[in-house]
Amino acid sequence: MVVDACCVTPPLLREPLTEFAAVEMAKKLKALADPVRLRLFSAIASHSGGEACVCDISGGIDVSQPTVSHHLKVLRAAGLLTSERRASWVYYAVVPEALREIAALLDLNTAALAGVTA
Amino acid sequence: MVVDACCVTPPLLREPLTEFAAVEMAKKLKALADPVRLRLFSAIASHSGGEACVCDISGGIDVSQPTVSHHLKVLRAAGLLTSERRASWVYYAVVPEALREIAALLDLNTAALAGVTA
Repeated sequence: MVVDACCVTPPLLREPLTEFAAVEMAKKLKALADPVRLRLFSAIASHSGGEACVCDISGGIDVSQPTVSHHLKVLRAAGLLTSERRASWVYYAVVPEALREIAALLDLNTAALAGVTA
Repeated sequence: MVVDACCVTPPLLREPLTEFAAVEMAKKLKALADPVRLRLFSAIASHSGGEACVCDISGGIDVSQPTVSHHLKVLRAAGLLTSERRASWVYYAVVPEALREIAALLDLNTAALAGVTA
């Protein structure tokens, strides 16, 4: 059973984050908070089926292959990507639950935001 | 005129992020990617009216006053908070557009995600 992330961590606009939730969320945000990692992640996320091998994604990003591998490892360690070897290529896929958790935290459809923007 | 952030930076699931968009987004994510900053930001965002003075928010977070001030400065520099002095207190308010920009980037209501979760 998948637990809906919105019900585990309430949006940060609704109530103050707990220390535990903040530590967990900071790990994911830190992994995403790098321009090259954001671009690699986006290249995988927007690729057909939400998965891609390095051969598919590194073309438009001007960094070395070891650098790409390092960044993909960081994203995987943060639980944002999974990887699977098929023949001679490793395929990376986004973890939708991880993205949902961040998006739920930043959910702007709350009464609190109505107060902010009124 | 406020430009809707959703129309400037498409969700990263829909198409690969440009280098410029990735650099800008990484700055905001990096500012949020710290447990204490996340908790301070959440305390302000969830406070009545989306604004608070340091006296309102630092109670539940066990760090020194200079540390709180440093973290608030980082959040302000990243465009996530504004500040305004009133009498002897500085009031901080969330910048809804900045949060919207991040949330729009992570928007999961896209055809791409349908592909991921199918």
